Amino acid sequence: VSFGVRLTVAYDGTEFAGFQVQPGQRTVAGALADAAQRVCRHDVTIRGASRTDAGVHAEGQVAAFACERELPATRWLLALNRYLPPDVAVRACEPCAPDYEPRFDALDKTYRYLFHLGSTRDPLLRRNAWHLGRRIVGRVPAPGPGVGVPLALDAMRAACARLEGTHDFRAFRAAADKRENTTRTLQRVALYEGHAGQPALLALEVRGDAFMMNMVRILAGTLVEVGCGRLSPDDVSSLLSARGERRDAGMTAPPHGLTLVAVTLGRLRSVRAPASR
Amino acid sequence: VSFGVRLTVAYDGTEFAGFQVQPGQRTVAGALADAAQRVCRHDVTIRGASRTDAGVHAEGQVAAFACERELPATRWLLALNRYLPPDVAVRACEPCAPDYEPRFDALDKTYRYLFHLGSTRDPLLRRNAWHLGRRIVGRVPAPGPGVGVPLALDAMRAACARLEGTHDFRAFRAAADKRENTTRTLQRVALYEGHAGQPALLALEVRGDAFMMNMVRILAGTLVEVGCGRLSPDDVSSLLSARGERRDAGMTAPPHGLTLVAVTLGRLRSVRAPASR
Repeated sequence: VSFGVRLTVAYDGTEFAGFQVQPGQRTVAGALADAAQRVCRHDVTIRGASRTDAGVHAEGQVAAFACERELPATRWLLALNRYLPPDVAVRACEPCAPDYEPRFDALDKTYRYLFHLGSTRDPLLRRNAWHLGRRIVGRVPAPGPGVGVPLALDAMRAACARLEGTHDFRAFRAAADKRENTTRTLQRVALYEGHAGQPALLALEVRGDAFMMNMVRILAGTLVEVGCGRLSPDDVSSLLSARGERRDAGMTAPPHGLTLVAVTLGRLRSVRAPASR
Repeated sequence: VSFGVRLTVAYDGTEFAGFQVQPGQRTVAGALADAAQRVCRHDVTIRGASRTDAGVHAEGQVAAFACERELPATRWLLALNRYLPPDVAVRACEPCAPDYEPRFDALDKTYRYLFHLGSTRDPLLRRNAWHLGRRIVGRVPAPGPGVGVPLALDAMRAACARLEGTHDFRAFRAAADKRENTTRTLQRVALYEGHAGQPALLALEVRGDAFMMNMVRILAGTLVEVGCGRLSPDDVSSLLSARGERRDAGMTAPPHGLTLVAVTLGRLRSVRAPASR
């Protein structure tokens, strides 16, 4: 008999080569498998809801695995956190079906991209926010602490509104992504100033049913081009309606600004184990 | 002729052996001196407002040095940030007297200590907040995300009120600190729940005219003992009025939860260079 375990996982992606296992690389799934194997005493395969890139963080990734040993969820939580390195932690643990597949259970995912608009770089934000310096924005930031980098937030907000809804996002995926179906639905694309009480942090929050390779990072990079006046909200609409190409969209924002905030589950109600939660 | 340069400095203290230069160690003052020397082309001595411990962070440390080369403040800002490592940055730069001593110019300093009260550890907070797990608090935290660790915040707030004002803080300094005068004035000792929009973060803010070795960390550790019921607000009052000893106060909180937020300057108005700011 085999038992399923579902995890809510947080990690600092800085020192990982992404979520997905890759031979010879330090990955989040690899770290989770190592910890689980110390408890199970057999090989374990970790399945995740989102294949986050190297350097991308998570507050609420969802992962699952099957194990031949049955343990209460709180025991799993304590045991895994004991064996995991400091940059990964299990935040919650529940039983599930042994073949539970988080990817198919995910109704939608929420990502946050953080832009740092300070006039100088900030060592305490360097691992989690993209500092938009002079070279990127092309303008001299206002000196002194606080918000120094000038971005046209109204234009960026207008572009966000154009991105919401169901569109062909083929211009917003890595060239390496070869999927046929490039239509996706974004339920929310919104900007929040002063994230975490810090005036210099601008947060982009994107919630959608499914994402293609680098999609949120290309959305973030394109919005920066809008904020700098190099693209207009109408250009963004054209990219969607005229089925634009990757080269017509903006740059790919660096991975360290991106965090997988949460995964909404519920598609596969039937496969969840009842009881003992 | 020699010119003075005053800096507002931010750093992630994780990889530093503290602010003050120590032979053979990686220090913040050492990194600042290296960067300044690449511009000045002569030896430079960095003077700081606060000698932060190894692992302690800063958002607004103040430092100064003398240089035989005159440069506009904005040039200094750009040049130093080019040569500094990613975990230190100069946030602002101003001319000052060549013998300007930030320590003597400081009217008061504000420190923040962050407690993480989540039921599980959080990899994204591990460098900046002290996770109060079961072993420290001695109680089982409530499972699930959010605030899991139970602390008696009312008692902690009452103890904060007792600490404000002018007292003999001899019980709240490292045993190695041998200063004769142990009377200090704390203008503010306050707790803030939900720091940075995160429900699980509790911030202790301490503003005072001067601090002894490990003083804020011992205050933080003592307040945790109050929150756990091992000490009462009256015990804290007794420690102050009865001139208690170090062993009577609480544990020394670890350095990584502590950040030097700001230094208020203004004692030495006369030595500040006017013009060219």
